[in-house]
Amino acid sequence: LRMSKGTVILAYSGGLDTSCILVWLKEQGYDVIAFLANIGQDEDFEAARIKAEKLGAKKVFIEDLRSEFVEDFIWPSVQANAVYEDRYLLGTAIARPCIARSQVEIARREGAQFVSHGATGKGNDQIRFELTCYALYPEVEIIAPWRIPDFYNRFRGRTDLMEYAQKHGIPVPVTPKAPWSMDANLMHISYESGILENPKSHAPADLYLMTKNPEDSPNTPDVLEIEFGNGVPLKVTNVKEGKSKNSPLDIFSYLNEIGGKHGVGRIDIVENRFIGMKSRGIYETPGGTILLQAHLDIETFTMDKEVRRIKQGLGIKFSELVYNGFWYSPECDFVRHCINKSQENVQGKVQLSVFKGQVYILGRESPKSLYNEELVSMDVQGNYDPCDASGFIRINAVRLREHHRLQGVSSIKK
Amino acid sequence: LRMSKGTVILAYSGGLDTSCILVWLKEQGYDVIAFLANIGQDEDFEAARIKAEKLGAKKVFIEDLRSEFVEDFIWPSVQANAVYEDRYLLGTAIARPCIARSQVEIARREGAQFVSHGATGKGNDQIRFELTCYALYPEVEIIAPWRIPDFYNRFRGRTDLMEYAQKHGIPVPVTPKAPWSMDANLMHISYESGILENPKSHAPADLYLMTKNPEDSPNTPDVLEIEFGNGVPLKVTNVKEGKSKNSPLDIFSYLNEIGGKHGVGRIDIVENRFIGMKSRGIYETPGGTILLQAHLDIETFTMDKEVRRIKQGLGIKFSELVYNGFWYSPECDFVRHCINKSQENVQGKVQLSVFKGQVYILGRESPKSLYNEELVSMDVQGNYDPCDASGFIRINAVRLREHHRLQGVSSIKK
Amino acid sequence: LRMSKGTVILAYSGGLDTSCILVWLKEQGYDVIAFLANIGQDEDFEAARIKAEKLGAKKVFIEDLRSEFVEDFIWPSVQANAVYEDRYLLGTAIARPCIARSQVEIARREGAQFVSHGATGKGNDQIRFELTCYALYPEVEIIAPWRIPDFYNRFRGRTDLMEYAQKHGIPVPVTPKAPWSMDANLMHISYESGILENPKSHAPADLYLMTKNPEDSPNTPDVLEIEFGNGVPLKVTNVKEGKSKNSPLDIFSYLNEIGGKHGVGRIDIVENRFIGMKSRGIYETPGGTILLQAHLDIETFTMDKEVRRIKQGLGIKFSELVYNGFWYSPECDFVRHCINKSQENVQGKVQLSVFKGQVYILGRESPKSLYNEELVSMDVQGNYDPCDASGFIRINAVRLREHHRLQGVSSIKK
Amino acid sequence: LRMSKGTVILAYSGGLDTSCILVWLKEQGYDVIAFLANIGQDEDFEAARIKAEKLGAKKVFIEDLRSEFVEDFIWPSVQANAVYEDRYLLGTAIARPCIARSQVEIARREGAQFVSHGATGKGNDQIRFELTCYALYPEVEIIAPWRIPDFYNRFRGRTDLMEYAQKHGIPVPVTPKAPWSMDANLMHISYESGILENPKSHAPADLYLMTKNPEDSPNTPDVLEIEFGNGVPLKVTNVKEGKSKNSPLDIFSYLNEIGGKHGVGRIDIVENRFIGMKSRGIYETPGGTILLQAHLDIETFTMDKEVRRIKQGLGIKFSELVYNGFWYSPECDFVRHCINKSQENVQGKVQLSVFKGQVYILGRESPKSLYNEELVSMDVQGNYDPCDASGFIRINAVRLREHHRLQGVSSIKK
Repeated sequence: LRMSKGTVILAYSGGLDTSCILVWLKEQGYDVIAFLANIGQDEDFEAARIKAEKLGAKKVFIEDLRSEFVEDFIWPSVQANAVYEDRYLLGTAIARPCIARSQVEIARREGAQFVSHGATGKGNDQIRFELTCYALYPEVEIIAPWRIPDFYNRFRGRTDLMEYAQKHGIPVPVTPKAPWSMDANLMHISYESGILENPKSHAPADLYLMTKNPEDSPNTPDVLEIEFGNGVPLKVTNVKEGKSKNSPLDIFSYLNEIGGKHGVGRIDIVENRFIGMKSRGIYETPGGTILLQAHLDIETFTMDKEVRRIKQGLGIKFSELVYNGFWYSPECDFVRHCINKSQENVQGKVQLSVFKGQVYILGRESPKSLYNEELVSMDVQGNYDPCDASGFIRINAVRLREHHRLQGVSSIKK
Repeated sequence: LRMSKGTVILAYSGGLDTSCILVWLKEQGYDVIAFLANIGQDEDFEAARIKAEKLGAKKVFIEDLRSEFVEDFIWPSVQANAVYEDRYLLGTAIARPCIARSQVEIARREGAQFVSHGATGKGNDQIRFELTCYALYPEVEIIAPWRIPDFYNRFRGRTDLMEYAQKHGIPVPVTPKAPWSMDANLMHISYESGILENPKSHAPADLYLMTKNPEDSPNTPDVLEIEFGNGVPLKVTNVKEGKSKNSPLDIFSYLNEIGGKHGVGRIDIVENRFIGMKSRGIYETPGGTILLQAHLDIETFTMDKEVRRIKQGLGIKFSELVYNGFWYSPECDFVRHCINKSQENVQGKVQLSVFKGQVYILGRESPKSLYNEELVSMDVQGNYDPCDASGFIRINAVRLREHHRLQGVSSIKK
Repeated sequence: LRMSKGTVILAYSGGLDTSCILVWLKEQGYDVIAFLANIGQDEDFEAARIKAEKLGAKKVFIEDLRSEFVEDFIWPSVQANAVYEDRYLLGTAIARPCIARSQVEIARREGAQFVSHGATGKGNDQIRFELTCYALYPEVEIIAPWRIPDFYNRFRGRTDLMEYAQKHGIPVPVTPKAPWSMDANLMHISYESGILENPKSHAPADLYLMTKNPEDSPNTPDVLEIEFGNGVPLKVTNVKEGKSKNSPLDIFSYLNEIGGKHGVGRIDIVENRFIGMKSRGIYETPGGTILLQAHLDIETFTMDKEVRRIKQGLGIKFSELVYNGFWYSPECDFVRHCINKSQENVQGKVQLSVFKGQVYILGRESPKSLYNEELVSMDVQGNYDPCDASGFIRINAVRLREHHRLQGVSSIKK
Repeated sequence: LRMSKGTVILAYSGGLDTSCILVWLKEQGYDVIAFLANIGQDEDFEAARIKAEKLGAKKVFIEDLRSEFVEDFIWPSVQANAVYEDRYLLGTAIARPCIARSQVEIARREGAQFVSHGATGKGNDQIRFELTCYALYPEVEIIAPWRIPDFYNRFRGRTDLMEYAQKHGIPVPVTPKAPWSMDANLMHISYESGILENPKSHAPADLYLMTKNPEDSPNTPDVLEIEFGNGVPLKVTNVKEGKSKNSPLDIFSYLNEIGGKHGVGRIDIVENRFIGMKSRGIYETPGGTILLQAHLDIETFTMDKEVRRIKQGLGIKFSELVYNGFWYSPECDFVRHCINKSQENVQGKVQLSVFKGQVYILGRESPKSLYNEELVSMDVQGNYDPCDASGFIRINAVRLREHHRLQGVSSIKK
């Protein structure tokens, strides 16, 4: 009788790859506990449980992380206006620490020394996953089969996996695989690899699962009012229908529904992975895109401009950290704390319309606004002396005139 | 016979305000030269010339600045991905230094000591205008009537201007003024003041002049291919129609046409003015919005990620400087130089579709791309050893584990 | 009988300038309350009180602000490693909001609408002073005589002040004025103007009052141990003498004593004023310089490197804000909050020697250190696999090799 | 007869470690070419050559890199005011790419596929060395024995090396090794490891080789004048002696001589390595410290303040990149280009005195100075209207007053 090498908590998806990994880990002499995180992807969790059990998982844990995903990961990203490289809303990046946190908790609880996952060796997810594990469970050992030569040399393509599956009684998918890979959660679906690897090729029209094609979306907008407190949504109301939602998960799901219906949040980008490669990704982030626009609006309305400037820099830093897998790091803790502090007065209501892939801000109001209608008015003077502006401008020009004195202006146009 | 106090170059628009200022300056004892800049606004320049002459302008200069506006001001902004406070594309901010540069040239040429303008005392434009003048013509004296008590106390509202106009033979507008003010140029139209000062009120649907309402825009997209070199567009082609443009002014005008036709580039925002007030502005920037998206795409495709990160910060700095009126400043010169340097390899073609207010990137190609299809492929290994990623991750985790050692994790979820 | 125009709280120094201002303000019809802040400058406060009363001040307030200056202003600057333009430790800049805060409190308490000060119209201090007043007492009106033409045209030089003084019974200084101006407080003495305005001239050796010339300072060092908690000093001990101090004011005074004795903290710089001029200043900051070095040391010892990097940027921002007079601003509040948060683990003891103008760090220890002697040791392996570094380096090189692939290396040396 | 595995260019120091590596590489089947870089360290290069030849090196290259080290590496660092983590002047960090660049040139020239070095697996130098190699010679293969288990398990300590040396005819050092390791070049000497690993222990007084103990240094200062152009020193003159130097290598060597004589540039710090460990290092950088102070001074004197602010950020970025080994990277190229651009007007002379470990700036002059003595003067008004400052301050206060309106001030002191 062979001794077990120990217990592995495997992040199990129910798909072909992680099913093969489950069996392979057993072959290697580990006890395997399968862990499935429900973060809003479309999945038959019970079928996956049964499958894992059949494949020899000692235990199977299925955790509904949807609410904590919204509150602990999506909300801070909304506060930060988190966007990586000016375009990507980080839907996958924030899901990884959420999943890994839960996996590590199970590992600690079950006394498992090992965790494993099916992420590839070229991607960002392996890093996001493992840095979370090392940060929260420093003694953990990580088994990443796609980086183990024995494994990746054995499974050089899908055919090898299929063969192995058939040999080991792993149910083989009957529908053909899409010629790309995808990753779905409550925040977004991402598509990459396969035919998408050619950055010049247009994405097929039928790729998108979460949003309607704007060409086919309704011809009349939905108008929403989103109420914020401390920089996060407290309530969303469909202004015409009167319907409203006010728990975090309900709010976000409803924004997904409306955004999806109107084709909001599709992007096709090339991005820079942490490991230094450029990759092409296609994303759809309906609810997140609406929230980004709404939050930008209420934030500028209520936040001092110089605080905003500093906070904008912190938000960019936050986005880079999260993209690179450092959600659980001292610097990301620090940045999150600072950003959260900046949101104290980010409170009020934004009205917006959602239509044909776009979000249009219509108006905003707030008890905490720094907008002063009288002060800014062109029709009344308010508590403002226009003469002050002359001095302001002349003092700002002191330096520019000195520079000119030195440089001369041989030719103004250059 | 009264001695002239000297010659003033007045930035003249042909409208009621600057017509009154023209006459008022003469009353104050100045010789007035009217200067009209054509930066693409919809204006009957000859009618304005005749009007200015009738009102007593000693000379009238009408300058077609459209090409230099595109090449010297819009193109550097495209290179910078210039966006102020995450949303505003700076259409007015970049027009001011273009106009003032030309005005100052005339002042120098005509030996005029004074320049004047009709910008108000609460806005940004007075600053942008005057800092340019002081930077390029440090000895200049600026007459800003809306900051001179004699003037602004006399003209407390439109009625006072109308009365003065009638008294001094200034033609009075026959159509009623819109209940807001607007500023138009090749890059954008901005709307503010009047009924827009209430930040909660929705903008009227008939406000927009440059873009079609997406609800009424065509039901089929236009597909464009934009070719870039050194980070600026060299050519735009309508893929379906085969039509193409390749001079800067033609390219930008065509992008405006297509963007306008599909309702692209409308935003309704609250922004922070340099003088510390928040104001509400509505903007439509059709061509600029298309270019921003296209440039973001080709830039990330061709630029190293760490260069991109540094350049992103410089672009934000550039946007703040330009918004605040510092186009002609040593720091903006410096930042423009650095950004331009960063664009050396930003070359290639982007395909995109324009539809119902949105710009969708479809694909991109470049001889200078740093995208390596083999390296990033999920199907082939390329010149990449996945085992390296293990070391990479573990070294990145050294610091996180040390932090954990110090802090402990009383509870992972906090 | 003339009506009073109202009550002015005058920041009174006891010197010729503010004595003349006191009398002049009375001439203008104001009731004057003199306010003297004791922030550690060498001054006969009781003599000043009597002088102010004799000159007609309705009331005189002398406030000992030394402890709050140390705790509320110097300590946050220590946490921030606050240095302006890489050299200036901000000794004057942090004193202004301390003084103005107290002055505004008196103004509110006494129901005074006006505050006044003797700062010149070209300097930074007027701004620091007045921004504090406007921030904390927005309705205040500020009388800055050196910016009022009636005043500054009347008092064009020291002779005019002397004449006015003699005429109005203001005691005239008997000792000749030094050919420069100086400003002293607990943190530093600054010297500028007069013969120092020529940036090429060396400062006279007898200028310095707070520090000994290192040529004449002791030939043996003092060795201090400074204990920090939350990034501020809790205790200082003279290691050889055994003497120690542990209240903030005592600690800082003792560091001044030791630093001054050994000639620490002298700098001669040109700096950029907020109003856009360059000026030459000479500063001596003995205790502050010791603390800067000690804090830098304990901070790096206890703070994660990436937190440090972000915090370093915030510290530079803090320094600029404080220099420019924005101590009381939303952004400076925000930055101070963030910096304070970063200091949670900045705790421990630093040993240093002070000798001939220099501070030498000798060693440090901390219960919160992230320094891991075993991990870093060259002699033992610790919990570290050197092979990981290979992967770390190769992954970091992925991007560099791709760049090389694109660029080629026509010649390595360029 | 065994086939050679190929040719290795070994960075050879002449010491015990790299001598053992040389022999070991031969044992492994490689042809070894020894490469010694002269970057100013105190070494008997001819003795080292003979030793390498005796140990079986196929060829030995000794390259005098001192001039290019000064001009290509030290000068750009001077322009950048390069300081890592506020204290470390990067003396080792900039030497590595200089050495590796030369090594790679030899490898290419000699058709060698391999390079090797004796850097340890926990340090920064392995990274700096190898990233340079990968960047400039992407196809290179690197042999880092201290990261190869076969090697490091065989040589677990100095004793194992000594034994191996004796066995293989490698001359064994006769003088006992200092209980720390050191690294010397023209820029600095660094000391670490051994008894220095305890961060609390004071460094022994006899550790320093490049600088005199300030307690024993001369009792009279040397006064130098350094002339700059484009931000780098063109000439140094000893003001009292009249002696001057004007080639880069002579200038830097002379600054080292004077700085060393007066004990300038000693620091004892804890720093953050790229791999995430904290380490304790002691450095002496005499000439570099003088230059840093002089350059800071002439730069602020001649550079616009806002350019300076942006450039300061770039300088910090540069320092981090260089510390981490990215000298040859697209981003460091970019940053160097930008910094170099900023130095166009950094020209003029700085006088300073060097005494007892300190550098005191005495005065400066420049034809490119933006310092305007008349403008800043307290005695004359210059082209400046003090009334402008009132408007400047009040406009700056607009935002602060609005903030106060919103927040209220329950209690000013908090």
